[in-house]
Amino acid sequence: MPHVSLPEGIPGISSGFAFRPETAKPMRELAHVLLHEPSTLSPAERELIATYVSSQNDCFFCQTSHGAAAAAHLGEKAHTVEDVKQDFTRAAVSDKLKALLVIAGQVQKGGKHVSAESVQKARNLGATDLEIHDTVLIAAAFCMYNRYVDGLATWQPRDPAMYATMGKHLATHGYITPSTKP
Amino acid sequence: MPHVSLPEGIPGISSGFAFRPETAKPMRELAHVLLHEPSTLSPAERELIATYVSSQNDCFFCQTSHGAAAAAHLGEKAHTVEDVKQDFTRAAVSDKLKALLVIAGQVQKGGKHVSAESVQKARNLGATDLEIHDTVLIAAAFCMYNRYVDGLATWQPRDPAMYATMGKHLATHGYITPSTKP
Repeated sequence: MPHVSLPEGIPGISSGFAFRPETAKPMRELAHVLLHEPSTLSPAERELIATYVSSQNDCFFCQTSHGAAAAAHLGEKAHTVEDVKQDFTRAAVSDKLKALLVIAGQVQKGGKHVSAESVQKARNLGATDLEIHDTVLIAAAFCMYNRYVDGLATWQPRDPAMYATMGKHLATHGYITPSTKP
Repeated sequence: MPHVSLPEGIPGISSGFAFRPETAKPMRELAHVLLHEPSTLSPAERELIATYVSSQNDCFFCQTSHGAAAAAHLGEKAHTVEDVKQDFTRAAVSDKLKALLVIAGQVQKGGKHVSAESVQKARNLGATDLEIHDTVLIAAAFCMYNRYVDGLATWQPRDPAMYATMGKHLATHGYITPSTKP
């Protein structure tokens, strides 16, 4: 049961957003810019970073919904989502993305864990300053979203079909408009 | 030295905001709603929650700037900021705020650490659902801001006078307009 009286029948973060629209607006907008607006990192790559951090934070709702969004972007390579969560060093993603996932994992542990060496390695593999910045911020932002979802003890259904539908919606429309209506 | 080429001479999070205005906008707006807009929790109480979480995350820039904002709100009771950071159970704050700080500390460790018991205790001491929600989100949001500031290895000056000036500005104007210009 949620820790506060969130509206019923709305899963995960959407229930917090419905409870407090004033904070939902900037939280949606931040996700939209980081994950959906044009970037030299593909939407699939950015959703994989979000999914990986959410899995490290053990947030079922976020890793499943963003994993589904990544899968929608990846199409027939959707298995990559599970591969990244299990062991990204062996997943079929670029060496640059692997280096960025190392940085994301360091951010998840705490900002001071990010090392100059891991940043240099990403840069050597072609990562730009903006890509490194956005990786740090995606990882930091999901340390917020994950804590918000689990810290309120939101309802997190286990139905895979619901997440698949949500993932397709997010991959297509992004984060500014609600993906799940009451 | 920062991990990416942030504009020089701008301290802490403001350098990340100057580097990436598109993400700065919703990040500023979220802080403004949570810490500055009208609430049944006073601005001082909310800044103390932000300061406490930032100190638990060992983020010098955030704990010092938000500590200075709290001090500006508190006036002659400014010593409360250090007291809360050292041991909030012995600080001169309300029992309700102490119960909310317990919840904030649980969020800092991870969303699943928030217990029904700690939420019930806060409620018994008069905390509303909205106050509990906002405490969870302030703590979650500072797990993002702290990781962003330290994960980019931003420049964090040690000059107390700079933070005192910044704190007064934040306490008066909030977070939507830049507190430090290049």
